[in-house]
Amino acid sequence: MIKQLLIGIVCSAAVLTLGILIGHFGINKSSNSAPSWVKDVMKGVDESLIEKFLSEVDNIQIQENLMVLTKVPHMATTAGDEQTVQFMLKRWQDPETGLDQAWREEYMVYLSFPDPENPNKVTVVSPSDTVQYTAREKEKSYTSDQDDPEVVQPYAAYSPAGHPKGKLVYANQGKPSDYQLLNNTVDLRGTIAITRYGGAGRADKAINGAPYGVIGVLVYTDPLDINDGRMSDTNETYPHSWYLPPSGVERGSFNTHYGDLLTPYLAAKDETYRIPAKDITGIPPIPIQPIGFEDAYKLICELGGEAAPNLWQGSFNCTYNFGGPGFKQTSTFNNSDVKLDIFNHEKLKNSSNVMGVIRGSVEPDRYVIYGNHRDSWVHGAIDPSSGTSVMLELTRVLGRMVKQGKWRPRRSIIFGSWGAEEFGLIGSAEYTEQYFTKLSERTVAYINVDIAVFANATLRASGMPSLQNVIFKSSKQVDAPGLDSTSVYDNWIQYANRTSPTHGLIPKVGYLSGAGSDYAAFVHYLGITSIDISYTYDRSKTNARIYPAYHTAYDTFDYASKYIDPGFVSHQAIARTAGSVLIRLADSLLLPLNCSDYAETLEDYLNTAVTLYQLQLQNKQISMEPLKRAVANFRSAATHLDQVVRTSDLANETPLKVRRINDQLMLLDRAFLDPLAFPDKYAFRHVIWASSSAGKPTFPGLADAYANAESSEESSAWNKVHYHLSVLSQAIEGAAHTLVDVI
Amino acid sequence: MIKQLLIGIVCSAAVLTLGILIGHFGINKSSNSAPSWVKDVMKGVDESLIEKFLSEVDNIQIQENLMVLTKVPHMATTAGDEQTVQFMLKRWQDPETGLDQAWREEYMVYLSFPDPENPNKVTVVSPSDTVQYTAREKEKSYTSDQDDPEVVQPYAAYSPAGHPKGKLVYANQGKPSDYQLLNNTVDLRGTIAITRYGGAGRADKAINGAPYGVIGVLVYTDPLDINDGRMSDTNETYPHSWYLPPSGVERGSFNTHYGDLLTPYLAAKDETYRIPAKDITGIPPIPIQPIGFEDAYKLICELGGEAAPNLWQGSFNCTYNFGGPGFKQTSTFNNSDVKLDIFNHEKLKNSSNVMGVIRGSVEPDRYVIYGNHRDSWVHGAIDPSSGTSVMLELTRVLGRMVKQGKWRPRRSIIFGSWGAEEFGLIGSAEYTEQYFTKLSERTVAYINVDIAVFANATLRASGMPSLQNVIFKSSKQVDAPGLDSTSVYDNWIQYANRTSPTHGLIPKVGYLSGAGSDYAAFVHYLGITSIDISYTYDRSKTNARIYPAYHTAYDTFDYASKYIDPGFVSHQAIARTAGSVLIRLADSLLLPLNCSDYAETLEDYLNTAVTLYQLQLQNKQISMEPLKRAVANFRSAATHLDQVVRTSDLANETPLKVRRINDQLMLLDRAFLDPLAFPDKYAFRHVIWASSSAGKPTFPGLADAYANAESSEESSAWNKVHYHLSVLSQAIEGAAHTLVDVI
Repeated sequence: MIKQLLIGIVCSAAVLTLGILIGHFGINKSSNSAPSWVKDVMKGVDESLIEKFLSEVDNIQIQENLMVLTKVPHMATTAGDEQTVQFMLKRWQDPETGLDQAWREEYMVYLSFPDPENPNKVTVVSPSDTVQYTAREKEKSYTSDQDDPEVVQPYAAYSPAGHPKGKLVYANQGKPSDYQLLNNTVDLRGTIAITRYGGAGRADKAINGAPYGVIGVLVYTDPLDINDGRMSDTNETYPHSWYLPPSGVERGSFNTHYGDLLTPYLAAKDETYRIPAKDITGIPPIPIQPIGFEDAYKLICELGGEAAPNLWQGSFNCTYNFGGPGFKQTSTFNNSDVKLDIFNHEKLKNSSNVMGVIRGSVEPDRYVIYGNHRDSWVHGAIDPSSGTSVMLELTRVLGRMVKQGKWRPRRSIIFGSWGAEEFGLIGSAEYTEQYFTKLSERTVAYINVDIAVFANATLRASGMPSLQNVIFKSSKQVDAPGLDSTSVYDNWIQYANRTSPTHGLIPKVGYLSGAGSDYAAFVHYLGITSIDISYTYDRSKTNARIYPAYHTAYDTFDYASKYIDPGFVSHQAIARTAGSVLIRLADSLLLPLNCSDYAETLEDYLNTAVTLYQLQLQNKQISMEPLKRAVANFRSAATHLDQVVRTSDLANETPLKVRRINDQLMLLDRAFLDPLAFPDKYAFRHVIWASSSAGKPTFPGLADAYANAESSEESSAWNKVHYHLSVLSQAIEGAAHTLVDVI
Repeated sequence: MIKQLLIGIVCSAAVLTLGILIGHFGINKSSNSAPSWVKDVMKGVDESLIEKFLSEVDNIQIQENLMVLTKVPHMATTAGDEQTVQFMLKRWQDPETGLDQAWREEYMVYLSFPDPENPNKVTVVSPSDTVQYTAREKEKSYTSDQDDPEVVQPYAAYSPAGHPKGKLVYANQGKPSDYQLLNNTVDLRGTIAITRYGGAGRADKAINGAPYGVIGVLVYTDPLDINDGRMSDTNETYPHSWYLPPSGVERGSFNTHYGDLLTPYLAAKDETYRIPAKDITGIPPIPIQPIGFEDAYKLICELGGEAAPNLWQGSFNCTYNFGGPGFKQTSTFNNSDVKLDIFNHEKLKNSSNVMGVIRGSVEPDRYVIYGNHRDSWVHGAIDPSSGTSVMLELTRVLGRMVKQGKWRPRRSIIFGSWGAEEFGLIGSAEYTEQYFTKLSERTVAYINVDIAVFANATLRASGMPSLQNVIFKSSKQVDAPGLDSTSVYDNWIQYANRTSPTHGLIPKVGYLSGAGSDYAAFVHYLGITSIDISYTYDRSKTNARIYPAYHTAYDTFDYASKYIDPGFVSHQAIARTAGSVLIRLADSLLLPLNCSDYAETLEDYLNTAVTLYQLQLQNKQISMEPLKRAVANFRSAATHLDQVVRTSDLANETPLKVRRINDQLMLLDRAFLDPLAFPDKYAFRHVIWASSSAGKPTFPGLADAYANAESSEESSAWNKVHYHLSVLSQAIEGAAHTLVDVI
């Protein structure tokens, strides 16, 4: 009986257990069971996946990408450019390592080219019209690359055609102050000015001179500014080092606006309205042509007139004189003119962006955009193909994970291979114009890697302060190239650092206040949180204003692999760092954007503004209190939002609460946009980051308006300062309103 | 044994069942159980709650609200206005029927007032300077309301002060064509023009006349336009009917822009930059004064000169002549001048919005805004207090549900009681300027109920086409006032209908293309989907351009309760209809906005544009194909999104998918904004709904640019047509991009 009882109990227990198991696992809790999406929507970054990504980024793959991309010159809209389009499409449509989708988007854009049949000429012409000297039309060949018939003659894109002839003068960097000073001594009417690169925008060297009567401009790169003084190609310059050979010429786009010049604010489609070409502003009103320092040396050292100031002197072993105007009496060029024969012509050409996407799994309507341009001036090994090679390696590793079903990002990732950047950031600008609303509503961040590697010393990053912590985190997990057990971060902090009131000593992240690459339209027109990443110089070792082969026929695979990044390890470090930033932005449950770091910058800007302007503004009865209040409100709103994040268990909250905070973070930069803040600056709408000519580390519109008022002293100019203060305060207050509790 | 076996089986079964029950209900499925928020986030509209709301809306409460609101005149920023501020705050902060929170927001705004010490005067003055006739300074009293010392003298706000004296002429409605015609016959230099209300904006009557040399303007309401011809106050006009007594004068704001005139695009805070008053545009350059038809009759019937055209003739029993200029020789006023003595002065005054909110439960960061202005010209029983009374009844019923814990909307609801609307929609405009970013990112819709009841015949609604189906649904569930078993919808469709290609015969919903009430800043500046709702006339019974006591001292509680809505049943119907719209927008899981209905309007506009313009544009080499493509793309994107909605089981999808579609719907109107589309029109940015002077039922900017080009025939004017076509096409394409799959 006891046995029976025991058997009964054991059996009952077994049956009960069976029942419990059936009840628990076998029957779906109809109304109370978690829908399948609950877990997915709360997933965040998978650190092991990032580790896997980092380990798979391959320097040899990058090198191979670069080799293909630089086989031939690929200036925008040329046959070489089309080859790169095809290459990108093939890679991004690869069934094993490609993206979900890739396609091209075309725009009809206004470009400017020299005439291969009538090359531009710069000559010295005697009074009897004898040609005494002719500047080089082509750069000297050291490798077969320079012999490619597709190497475009050095020229100034958007310089008008024309044949000005006049006495030569030296105008330093062609800044307004340079021409002003020169004009005190020399009558500039009818002269040709020779200027050196740097100090002023390319087009400005002509725009600033024309009002003084200058009729033509030459521009060259002084060895002082690019070669640490080296001039000889027998042993000093490329192919013996990274320095620029004497005949090397920096090409460039000579315009001050970005985007297609004929279709401001409109995507340049076939039937889009185009302004009359005569209404284009911001391009040279007089012919301008770049030359090598070999030719510049011949001209400058023969100049007559007074000696130019010390700051105007370059590396040539002669005194840089102003010009008589013209050459000195002892010169064989005495009494001769310099003549420019410029045959540039403008054309509407079809330029392509290549686009690719990885669809997001949980929030496909949130975009992280990663981009770089594809077009170069010549072979463009560094500019832009270093960045394109890095992007292709990124997409190869990520694409394979997606194709293998191992990963799909939370948010969508859009890759953009922009066209016609060299002519003024055209492809990216047209893209932002065409998709303005969609992009502005949904884009979390834009990552730009153009020139991936300027040099192999240290990371450089510029971006919105809110992104600072992402690049810090990412750079800490990547090894610095060529260094044992030092992270990119630890190496970086040695080269560029600052002391933050909150974080102590940290690497210094720059600001994106100019329009130097394709981030411009994203930052200034769309107000999208952006970052630009590269590897760069040890400034203790060179004063070169940029890597010396920039925009010349020497920017080749040979140059890049020998002198910029042998072994492509810096490229690899950039690919890893940028990729980690990308994955973090795409996968984090909570966006890794920190609004308190933004507050720190605003406070910094405010302090500078108060120091520089407050006293004088008080005299003008203009109060800075609204701006101070706005910054203080922004800080307290940021602190509050930080606190909400810290005290919330977001992984267990409703996904709509996480989304709400993410929207606050994503849209923060949009609050700083005001389409009326800078009526004179094309497509600059971001009141914190707009470009500024005042050169003060503070709010750009305020600095410019103040500088202008101070020099003009008109009451209407002080009104503009007051107006901009109100615009700025309202924008910052508006941003603060978006960070406080939503209701 | 069998028995034992049976017992064993039964026991085992019982134990098994017990186990199953324990397993199923007793043990929490740790990782697989649904978080508590899952059900909440998927909840939608509760129809029984709407029924409860409808049943609780009380006409007597509305009547009582109106009685309190109209006790004294409450012109903006006066003591009477402050009383209404206090009343709103008291109601919205009521612990039992109030909102979650209510507060005031203040702006320093630029207003214009007559001088109580020096009332404006209109006189007829003989050549020897004898005053022969003086127009009334005040309206005649019929009830004690008109005796209130706070009744402001009739005046034209923003008319400059001044004392013009000259020969009188009759300029019809003061349209450009009126002055042009008049000027063919009469030398207008130095004249005073009398005009009637209608046909042109108030300020335009002066702005249009000044270029011809007119030095002062009178404006009155002709009995033809407001009283169906009635003129006698012995038995025809108020207090015997709703018609305007002979001394009644329509006051008004005489400006063409909206928002504070000194702070365009900036919220008018104390220290905000203010433009110099001399730089204000869109206000009368010469003095203007409104008078009653009693006085106008005395002046017009004495005018000399030729008879004005038939279309210029009003209801007076005399021929309306042009004026010699001046009076006819047979008149006692022969050779006399009309003199205006205008003592208006401008002041910066503190105006308040009263704001109140009900916090959303699931998506607090999505706002449905409901608003009306609070300020009146005099007692303002209809304008605006009918709307304010309705709003207060809405908030009483909804507030009580919230306080009792019976309801909390899915999205947040913001109520706005705007200040200084009568001076140019100032309170609402400043609000949108101050909170621009936040509102544009988060607002689902704006509902405006200003004058709730113009008359008691039928519903009238104007708004974006995407909202059409909400007002249809809501109006179907409300009984039409005074009719048995007829819904507001069924009544409405009899008064105003159209045949939709998709829906067949439906009530006609108007468009919000002007700036007639506080929706203007929401529609035109922020691009927020908006609707304006009221009860209105049977047009077969009256031609009055508006209810006759509009902006006069007769717009009182007595007038409203006797002649506009006895029993306040139309008020009640509006409260119910608008409340149902509000709850649906706030509570629906999927926003009840229909983008295909928007497509229908765009197609309608396109067809009109093609019919009117295509031939001539082809002659000018301007293609309409991009616009056609854009509209077609919009249609197919809308159809696609509709399909996604129809084929999704949204209540069981991730809340982020619902949110994604809701964001597409919410932000649709934002895609139509272009801050550069209408550079000459202050704060008009919506390319579909901007105001237009061309008077064609099509895209406003295209219509205006075309009309301008056709009259000027300059090529630059045709360029502007092409430019606007590109702006428009890009905006519609951009909108379509936001409706297709997000990636």
